[in-house]
Amino acid sequence: MKASILTVGDEILIGQIVDTNSSRIAQRLGEHGVSVCEMRSAGDTREAITGALNELFTGCNLVIITGGLGPTKDDITKHTLARYFGATRMTLHEPVLRHITELLGRRGIALSELNRNQALVPDVCEALPNLAGTAPGLWFERDGKFAIALPGVPYEMEYLMDSEVIPRLKKHFSLGKVYHKNITTAGIAESTLAEAVAAWEAGLPAHLRLAYLPSLSGVKLRLSCYAADTYADVADEVEVQLRHLRQLIPSHIVGYDGDTLESVVGQLLKVRRATLATAESCTGGRIAALITAQPGASAYFKGGIVAYSNDLKVQTLGVSSGDIEKFGAVSKAVVEQMAQGARRTLQVDYAVASSGIAGPDGGTPEKPVGTVWVAVATPREVFSHKLNFGNDRERTILRASYSVLNLLRLALTGSSVG
Amino acid sequence: MKASILTVGDEILIGQIVDTNSSRIAQRLGEHGVSVCEMRSAGDTREAITGALNELFTGCNLVIITGGLGPTKDDITKHTLARYFGATRMTLHEPVLRHITELLGRRGIALSELNRNQALVPDVCEALPNLAGTAPGLWFERDGKFAIALPGVPYEMEYLMDSEVIPRLKKHFSLGKVYHKNITTAGIAESTLAEAVAAWEAGLPAHLRLAYLPSLSGVKLRLSCYAADTYADVADEVEVQLRHLRQLIPSHIVGYDGDTLESVVGQLLKVRRATLATAESCTGGRIAALITAQPGASAYFKGGIVAYSNDLKVQTLGVSSGDIEKFGAVSKAVVEQMAQGARRTLQVDYAVASSGIAGPDGGTPEKPVGTVWVAVATPREVFSHKLNFGNDRERTILRASYSVLNLLRLALTGSSVG
Repeated sequence: MKASILTVGDEILIGQIVDTNSSRIAQRLGEHGVSVCEMRSAGDTREAITGALNELFTGCNLVIITGGLGPTKDDITKHTLARYFGATRMTLHEPVLRHITELLGRRGIALSELNRNQALVPDVCEALPNLAGTAPGLWFERDGKFAIALPGVPYEMEYLMDSEVIPRLKKHFSLGKVYHKNITTAGIAESTLAEAVAAWEAGLPAHLRLAYLPSLSGVKLRLSCYAADTYADVADEVEVQLRHLRQLIPSHIVGYDGDTLESVVGQLLKVRRATLATAESCTGGRIAALITAQPGASAYFKGGIVAYSNDLKVQTLGVSSGDIEKFGAVSKAVVEQMAQGARRTLQVDYAVASSGIAGPDGGTPEKPVGTVWVAVATPREVFSHKLNFGNDRERTILRASYSVLNLLRLALTGSSVG
Repeated sequence: MKASILTVGDEILIGQIVDTNSSRIAQRLGEHGVSVCEMRSAGDTREAITGALNELFTGCNLVIITGGLGPTKDDITKHTLARYFGATRMTLHEPVLRHITELLGRRGIALSELNRNQALVPDVCEALPNLAGTAPGLWFERDGKFAIALPGVPYEMEYLMDSEVIPRLKKHFSLGKVYHKNITTAGIAESTLAEAVAAWEAGLPAHLRLAYLPSLSGVKLRLSCYAADTYADVADEVEVQLRHLRQLIPSHIVGYDGDTLESVVGQLLKVRRATLATAESCTGGRIAALITAQPGASAYFKGGIVAYSNDLKVQTLGVSSGDIEKFGAVSKAVVEQMAQGARRTLQVDYAVASSGIAGPDGGTPEKPVGTVWVAVATPREVFSHKLNFGNDRERTILRASYSVLNLLRLALTGSSVG
């Protein structure tokens, strides 16, 4: 089964936003055996959308479209598709209207004419309920050609892909069975990982494909079998392969499938009935934000201190002001005192800390921009690492945050943290 | 002048990487008056690339291509273009070979056959020297149709766009000028905003186009003039329109062009030489993380407390435990005490606070999931708002964080905060 993706919006064509929807849609389709043969971005005009649809439908029968479903004037996807599929009129979709009214009501917003128009659905399509926003998805079909329009807001698009599009595609088409196993790793660069597992990778059976999916939190490995229905024992076979893999990179495997560094650390703390606190300088709250992005984090996370100024490091965490003067705030001594201070002051079992130079200013020859010290304090010890991820501020903050979560994970599992 | 962008690579189509090149190329072209009418991604096959070129050249005479110029299997772009433009042979390009040899030499790598092949250039194109990498850019032209192939590595693509492509385009074509003005708004939903400015929008001259770009931080408006050289006074004209717009939504305009809620709040604090702290419960560090994502935040941000547990709210922020019992942690009384406590304890001029139920659990009939109280404490007063953005945890956290930053902005500018 093949599909194309069409993203609509002048803001994409002028480079104001990066289209991340196409990539996420392709990932989801791929997981269910649908391969994407083309991606396109077209402007907010009827001609551009119609022209793209004509061309895309020559190569496949399914086009997934995002963007241009908002309530304002420049959003013309709905009307263009209605005409393309021969709609004669728009019908007020009562359940959609009720949902929009409720959603806005909760936010204290009265229903406007523009919002009401979002509940108008062309008579030739089905509305896909969008509990994540106001614009419903639209499912068009004619002569075996399918066009599915989704809102451009990534969060709403993802909601509709998962709750409506994939289940409906499965009903309409016999999608080949695809088996995926994701292995979440941390603390190892893509090239180092590739070398460490090279022999294992070379020995994989031909029907198992390995992909490397690097991100700021670490590299995800994915083992895929694209004809899983013809390999009854694929799950067992993968399990055998994972047993080998675990021996090659034992301390780098965080978990599988949906597991993330944050979720695994949370689980480890929960099982041990242990509590956690953060003491952050250069990461500025990002470690705490990652931890609390996990539902149920209150079971183990008591809180944290963002000690951005040196005063606060001394006042709230009990860091020695003499040591700040002597070693600088970005130092082993200070970051370890921050972690220990958080453990003591916030009365928790484990604490993590960061202190660094996120940049772009503040670097020196000995401590260039990107230098970050991170520390973990446990009931038994405190240890720290010096990192440097280069001179991109956002990258440095995020990678340092993930690094310290990985150190905490290693401490919790009793692995060597070298 | 119009152009299309074609990115080549299977890794894009399977969603393994997000194509950021198209957006950056479009930005650069737009700055020089070239408007992008289409973007596409095609797989690593001769048919996909040739098919895309045929279709793209029906809409414009310039196609910029990235990807598929690497030394290994990705070689397909060069050979496909060579055939497409009727090359008869490949010529060893001596200056390119010298550059590759030197570059690899500096990294201690000997020239391989694969590297040497990168210096082979089709006889129908010009090589664009790539000082940022090994693969040269390729400039093809026939019958007034131009195809420019660049390496897919973003850094190399950008180098070639700036040093070769833009200067050459300027020599070949008289490029039109494009004028964009972005208006950052906050605290107003897209539909409410559209209604508030409807009459103004309807009265805009035909050559000024308005776009709505919603995100979790607010809606961005963009006024564009795609033939700015024929309207000498477009900047003045836009300024007149903005004067009207400011009267319609005075308190919702955060700033212009690159301005964000975070950067503007930072600027306002800096100008006032005022300091800021955060006291977060449900946002779990996200407000602090947004503030500290700004370079130079240490000039006004002293730090913050993530008081996730009620104990910490009492211990570190001085919230009354009686009030927590009486009103609950998610209440006006508690969130205002958190903000005031942060102001006092962390000795700052302004403090912001949050307390809510991010979900998915913890909701009650009176305080459903998504309920968040946010507060701002200033040297003169403390005030708070109750919000609800529905039941998505990540969205609730982010929208609540932006909401409180907007309230702080209003307090700093002396606007009414309702």
